[in-house]
Amino acid sequence: MSPRSVLITGCNRGIGLEFVKQFLSMKQPPKHLFATCRNPAEAADLQALQAGHSNLHILQLEVTDESRYASLAEEVGAIVEENGLNLLINNAGILIRTNLPDVTAEVMKKTFDVNSIAPILISQAFLPLLKRAADAQKDAPLGWARAAIVNVSSKVGSCDDNKRGGLYAYRASKAALNVCTVSLARDLFKDGILATVVHPGWVLTDIGTKNALIESSESISGMLKVMQGLNEETNASFYDYAGKLIPW
Amino acid sequence: MSPRSVLITGCNRGIGLEFVKQFLSMKQPPKHLFATCRNPAEAADLQALQAGHSNLHILQLEVTDESRYASLAEEVGAIVEENGLNLLINNAGILIRTNLPDVTAEVMKKTFDVNSIAPILISQAFLPLLKRAADAQKDAPLGWARAAIVNVSSKVGSCDDNKRGGLYAYRASKAALNVCTVSLARDLFKDGILATVVHPGWVLTDIGTKNALIESSESISGMLKVMQGLNEETNASFYDYAGKLIPW
Repeated sequence: MSPRSVLITGCNRGIGLEFVKQFLSMKQPPKHLFATCRNPAEAADLQALQAGHSNLHILQLEVTDESRYASLAEEVGAIVEENGLNLLINNAGILIRTNLPDVTAEVMKKTFDVNSIAPILISQAFLPLLKRAADAQKDAPLGWARAAIVNVSSKVGSCDDNKRGGLYAYRASKAALNVCTVSLARDLFKDGILATVVHPGWVLTDIGTKNALIESSESISGMLKVMQGLNEETNASFYDYAGKLIPW
Repeated sequence: MSPRSVLITGCNRGIGLEFVKQFLSMKQPPKHLFATCRNPAEAADLQALQAGHSNLHILQLEVTDESRYASLAEEVGAIVEENGLNLLINNAGILIRTNLPDVTAEVMKKTFDVNSIAPILISQAFLPLLKRAADAQKDAPLGWARAAIVNVSSKVGSCDDNKRGGLYAYRASKAALNVCTVSLARDLFKDGILATVVHPGWVLTDIGTKNALIESSESISGMLKVMQGLNEETNASFYDYAGKLIPW
């Protein structure tokens, strides 16, 4: 079973856009797929997907704009009604490459804002809708089709995997996101909501650059498989797109 | 062997103050012990230690005030001269208890500023003095007596150990500090500088509250033992005050 409703942030390009494409082309696509981006008017690729897909709702969200969260949740709530929101994918993120000689407070702050703080506060804002979804399917197994938060992290946020050093701002933001996601999982389990992080792999996108290792289609189909397998056992874990467990 | 010079941040009370006390009462105390605090004039306990300890230098530092870093490093450099600074202990930290219903961007930002960004930028600012110390003892074994950065973290920043959830801002800031400390260790190893994090335990201080488990004296003597044992093998690790390895 696939989730009835899904919200994904950062969908104008890259991984977010590919998530939207693959959700839309599922055998059983979501009844409502909410794709947010900073500037819908300029998101041509995303807009193009709307033709023939009345289940795709494109909504404006600059993820660090807290003042927008309540109205966004209200818009989504008005559409999903008593079924709530099943799956929230916090995908929007930035990568500013800074090493020890050039890392600044400004870059670290900006990266924390987008990659760490926004996903937690967006989760907080959508909690009533996620709880509503979990309640609406009280007898369904725990999982992405009932209620879940998936935060797109990066292996680069792993302490254990940090063999090369550098990348202070990005690593810090993803490590912070990881530990907060574990907190989400612990805090929300009693409500029937799961929470986990996934590593997309090094993907050929604007962020991943041309040196990356895999196509976004492979990354997204892999992450969807991981998310589909999300259950009580795999909750609060750190899997990559290939289903490999990453140490924290 | 103990380090010839040590700088510790956040020394007006709690763990920082106890670090100062125990360094001063070592058999072979540091020739120069730099204890920073926000407001030296109000740090009565710290000032009281200066009587009879001409090796104690109390210096003003609000850890988030980047504009102060250069002049501070200059003051320290003028005292340590060609021997450089052997050991930097980033101890200053804040704990604002916020759980999912009440966590805010403001609290997360403030906590990142003090607990994650400041230790990295202070390390960056003192890098020339740490390198000088490492070079001045080219033939000495790697360790705290040659050149090292020790960041006071918390087990609460461990993803693996996060069984209770909550504490978003604090956990996030310490997880970020952990992964950045591993980066410091990777980046600085070639220069003869080690870097690690330690967990002080749940200590009876203003931060730890009265419910804490151990006295600060036990915490600090334990952490000093861990730091004394710091070498190539234990570099970039996460030990608690009792010498127990904490999973990331």
